[in-house]
Amino acid sequence: MTEKYQQFRKHVGEIFDLDAVVSVLEWDQQTYMPSGGAQVRAMQIATVYRLWHENLTGDEFSAALEAAKEETANLDPDSDEVRIIRHMQREVDQWRKVPSEWVSEFKRLTTLAHQAWEEARANDDFAHFQPHLEEIVQMRRQYSEFFAPYDHPYDPLLDYFEPGMKTSDVKAVFDELRPRQVELVREIAERGAPVDDAILRQNFDTSKQWDFGIEVIKALGYDFERGRQDKAAHPFTTSFGIGDVRITTRFDPKYIGTALFGTIHEAGHAMYDQGISPSLDRTDLINGASYGVHESQSRMMENLVGRSRPFWKAFFPRLQQYFSSQLGEMDLETFYRAINKVEPSLIRVEADEATYNLHIMLRFEIETALAENKLSVADLPEVWNSKMEEYLGLTPPNDADGVLQDVHWSSGYIGYFATYSLGNLMASQIWTKMEEDIPDLTNQIERAQFAEMLAWLRENIHQHGAKFEPLELLQRVTGNTLSVEPYLRYLTGKYEEIYKLS
Amino acid sequence: MTEKYQQFRKHVGEIFDLDAVVSVLEWDQQTYMPSGGAQVRAMQIATVYRLWHENLTGDEFSAALEAAKEETANLDPDSDEVRIIRHMQREVDQWRKVPSEWVSEFKRLTTLAHQAWEEARANDDFAHFQPHLEEIVQMRRQYSEFFAPYDHPYDPLLDYFEPGMKTSDVKAVFDELRPRQVELVREIAERGAPVDDAILRQNFDTSKQWDFGIEVIKALGYDFERGRQDKAAHPFTTSFGIGDVRITTRFDPKYIGTALFGTIHEAGHAMYDQGISPSLDRTDLINGASYGVHESQSRMMENLVGRSRPFWKAFFPRLQQYFSSQLGEMDLETFYRAINKVEPSLIRVEADEATYNLHIMLRFEIETALAENKLSVADLPEVWNSKMEEYLGLTPPNDADGVLQDVHWSSGYIGYFATYSLGNLMASQIWTKMEEDIPDLTNQIERAQFAEMLAWLRENIHQHGAKFEPLELLQRVTGNTLSVEPYLRYLTGKYEEIYKLS
Repeated sequence: MTEKYQQFRKHVGEIFDLDAVVSVLEWDQQTYMPSGGAQVRAMQIATVYRLWHENLTGDEFSAALEAAKEETANLDPDSDEVRIIRHMQREVDQWRKVPSEWVSEFKRLTTLAHQAWEEARANDDFAHFQPHLEEIVQMRRQYSEFFAPYDHPYDPLLDYFEPGMKTSDVKAVFDELRPRQVELVREIAERGAPVDDAILRQNFDTSKQWDFGIEVIKALGYDFERGRQDKAAHPFTTSFGIGDVRITTRFDPKYIGTALFGTIHEAGHAMYDQGISPSLDRTDLINGASYGVHESQSRMMENLVGRSRPFWKAFFPRLQQYFSSQLGEMDLETFYRAINKVEPSLIRVEADEATYNLHIMLRFEIETALAENKLSVADLPEVWNSKMEEYLGLTPPNDADGVLQDVHWSSGYIGYFATYSLGNLMASQIWTKMEEDIPDLTNQIERAQFAEMLAWLRENIHQHGAKFEPLELLQRVTGNTLSVEPYLRYLTGKYEEIYKLS
Repeated sequence: MTEKYQQFRKHVGEIFDLDAVVSVLEWDQQTYMPSGGAQVRAMQIATVYRLWHENLTGDEFSAALEAAKEETANLDPDSDEVRIIRHMQREVDQWRKVPSEWVSEFKRLTTLAHQAWEEARANDDFAHFQPHLEEIVQMRRQYSEFFAPYDHPYDPLLDYFEPGMKTSDVKAVFDELRPRQVELVREIAERGAPVDDAILRQNFDTSKQWDFGIEVIKALGYDFERGRQDKAAHPFTTSFGIGDVRITTRFDPKYIGTALFGTIHEAGHAMYDQGISPSLDRTDLINGASYGVHESQSRMMENLVGRSRPFWKAFFPRLQQYFSSQLGEMDLETFYRAINKVEPSLIRVEADEATYNLHIMLRFEIETALAENKLSVADLPEVWNSKMEEYLGLTPPNDADGVLQDVHWSSGYIGYFATYSLGNLMASQIWTKMEEDIPDLTNQIERAQFAEMLAWLRENIHQHGAKFEPLELLQRVTGNTLSVEPYLRYLTGKYEEIYKLS
C-alpha cells in the first residue's frame, strides 16, 4: 500500500491502542483490582477514553481518512483497505456527534457504577445502585438526542451494538417469536415427560469444575497462548488484540451449569476474536461484526454444541471421571435431558434455550420504556418483578436475583440485550449452513473433533471481523436475511424429542 | 485554591493517569499477559507513553503551569501546591529535552526487550537478549546526549533515578565504602565463627511460603484493601494511585529466602507508596522522593527489620508452625545466624548485607563504561564474569545466573542499581534517627507491633512523596547529609556479633 494509506493505518492503530488500553483497565478492574483502586481507575479510564475520542474525531484523523479514501478508490470494495476505511468512516461519523466531555464523563460514571452494582448485588440493595443507574439512563437519553432525528429514541442505543438494526426490526422479530416460544414452553409444561435436573445441583468442587472447563474449551479450540481465563463477578470476554483475547468465568459450588456453560459461552466469543484475520489487528474491526454476530458464536458454542447430545457423547465420560461420586452412576441420556430441562427461572444466564428469549424480551421492553422516558429507574424493581410474573410466572424473592442480576446496565450497556436473541437466531441460520457444508459434523463432535468446525467458522465468519455489517455477513454466509424459522425449527425439534411431545 | 491552580491540577491529574495506565499495562505484562499479547502490548504502551509525553511537554500544560506559579507565588514554599508546581516544572524541563518519538520508541523497545530477557534468562541464552540490549544501550546514550553538556555521560541516566546525584558523588561514596566493606567480608571469611544456612535450603511448600509471607507483610502494615500480591519472574512494586499499590513476588521451592525477603522488600516499597498523602494522589509525586529513598524503605524492611533478631523473636515460632518438619527442631539463634550468613554469591537479590553493595559496584562500573562507550554489549558476559571473580571470587556457571539475572536493563533502567546502595546508606541513617525517637522500638518489634514504626515512617518520610528532593528529605529527617558511617556502624556491629569477631 502507498504512503497515505499507511499514514491512515498508523492513526487507526494508535486509536485502537487507546480503545484496547481501556479494555485492559476494565479487565483488571473486574478481575484483580483491589477495592481501593476504584476511584483513580475511573479517572484513568475516563482520561484514556477522552483521548481515544479526541483522536478518532479530530481533524487530523479525518484528513488522513479522506486522503486514504482517495488513494484507495479503485481497490476491490471487499478489500481490507476499503473496508477498514469504511468502518472508520462510520465510527467517525457516529462519534463526531458525541462530545468528548460526554464520552469521558460517561466512562467515569460507568466505571464507578460497576463497583456500586457489584456491592448492590452482593448486598441485595437496589437503592445503592439506583442513583448510578439514574445517571446512566439520563446520559443514555442524552446520547440518543445526539443522533436526533430518529424513528425511536432507542434506535441510537441499539445501533451502537447492532449496526443497521432498528427498534422496529427487533420488535417485529420478537412479535414473531413470542407467541411460538410461549406456546412451546406451555406445551412442555402441560404435556412434556418430566425431566429432573437435581443431579446438576450437588456439591461440585470448583477447582475440578475449573479443570474440566479448561479441558473442554481447549478441545473446542480456544488458544491459551493467545488468551487466558480468570474469575469475575460476571463472566465476559475481552480482546486487546488478536494475540490476547481473555475470558472470565464464575463458579457455583452447588450447581455445575453456571461455570460449565458460562465458560463455553465465553470461549465461543473468544474463538471468534482469536480467529480474526491478522491483517485487521490493531484496528477497531477486530471487535467483530456486531454484538449480535458475537452472540451467535457464543450462544452456538454454548447451546448448539455445548448442550447437544453428540457433544456429551464425547465429554460425559470425562465429566464422570472428574465427578465420579456425583455423576458416576448416571447414564448419558439422563444427563443430556437434565442440562436441557425447560423451566421458567429467575436468572437469564442460567435459563434454558426455550425460555431464554423471554428474559430478553422483558429487558427489551424495559429498556425501550427507559429510552422513551416512560419508566423511572426507581420503579424498576417493581416493573421487573411484574414482568417476570407475566413472562415466566415467577416473582424474584429479591432484587439480587431480579433487576440486579445483570452487569450490563452498570457498564452503560443499554441496548445490548436484544443482541443475545438476534445471536440465537443467527446461530441457527449459520449452523444450518455449516451442517450442509460439513455433512460429517455430528460425527466429528461425537469424537471431540472440532477442527473442521472451527476452520469453517473462521473461513466464513471469524476472519472477517467487522469488515461486513451483520446482515451483510449473514447474507454472504447463508444466502438469507435474518429469519426466525431455522431457530424455531431447531428449538421445536430438540424439545419435542426431549419432552416426547410428538 | 483558586481557578488557575485548579486548572493546572486537572492537567497534572490527566498526565498522571497516562503514566499510571502504562504501569497497569506493564504490571499485566509481567503477571498475567499471555505470550501472544506481547506485540500489541508494546504498541499500546508506546502509544500511551507518547501521549503522556506530549501532554507533559505541550504548550498547554506549560501555560497552565506558569499561570499556577504566578497565582501561588506567595504560598508557603513547603505547601503541596508550591511543591507540586516545582516538581512538575522539573519534569517539564527534563522531558522537553527528549523528543516524543524517542520516548515512544524506547517504551516499545523495552516492552519487547523485557519479553526477550525473560526468554533469554529461562534458556540461558544471552545472544537472544543481546540485540535488544544493544538497542537499549544505544538509545540510553542518545538520551544522555539530550542533556549535554554534562560532567559525565552517565549523569543524566543517574539523575533520572536519583535527582540531584552525580556520577562523581556515587563514585566517592563507593570509594569510601569499598575498602571497608571488602575488609569486613575478608575478616568474616578468615576469622569468623562458621555459620551454616543449609536449613534454609530444604523443600518448602510454596503455597505455605505464600501464606507466611502474607501474614508477615500484613503485620508490617501493608494494606490489602489498597493492594495485592501476585507472582512475577522478577519481583517489583507498582503504584497506580495511593489506593492501588501492588507487589509481586517469586518462589524457590528449595530455598525459603527468595520469597521471604523478596516479599518483605517489596512490601517496604509498597508501604511507602501507600503512605503518601492523599493530597498528592493523581500527581507524579506519589512515586516517592527518588529510587534511592524508595530503596531505603524496602531495604530497611528487608534487612534492618526482616533480618533482625527482634523480628524473628516474634515470627520464628509462626514460621516453625508452617514448616514444622523442616524447622521445628531448630532454635532461634541458629536460624538468625543462617539468614545472615555472609558468603559471596552469584545472585544480587539473594546476597547478604555484607556483600550486597559489591554486586552494585560491579553493575555501576559496567553501566558507566557502557555510558562512556568503552564497553560493548557483546562483551558483557565476559566482563561480568571477570568482575564477579574480582569482587566476589566467583565465576558464574552460566549467564542466567550471571549477566542475565536482573530485569533492570531489559526495562531500560540503566542508572538504577546505585540507588540500592544509596538506599542502604539512607536506611541506616533514618533508622538511627527513628531509634532515638522510639526508644521502645526493639521491644515493639519483638512483639510484632509495627504501628508506631510505620506511623513514624509515614510522618517523616512516606507522606511527603516527592515533595522534597532526596538529600533535602534526608536532611529534614536526620539533620545530616548522606553518610556511610551509620551504615558501616550497623553492618560491623551486626556481623561482629554474629561472627564473634571481637
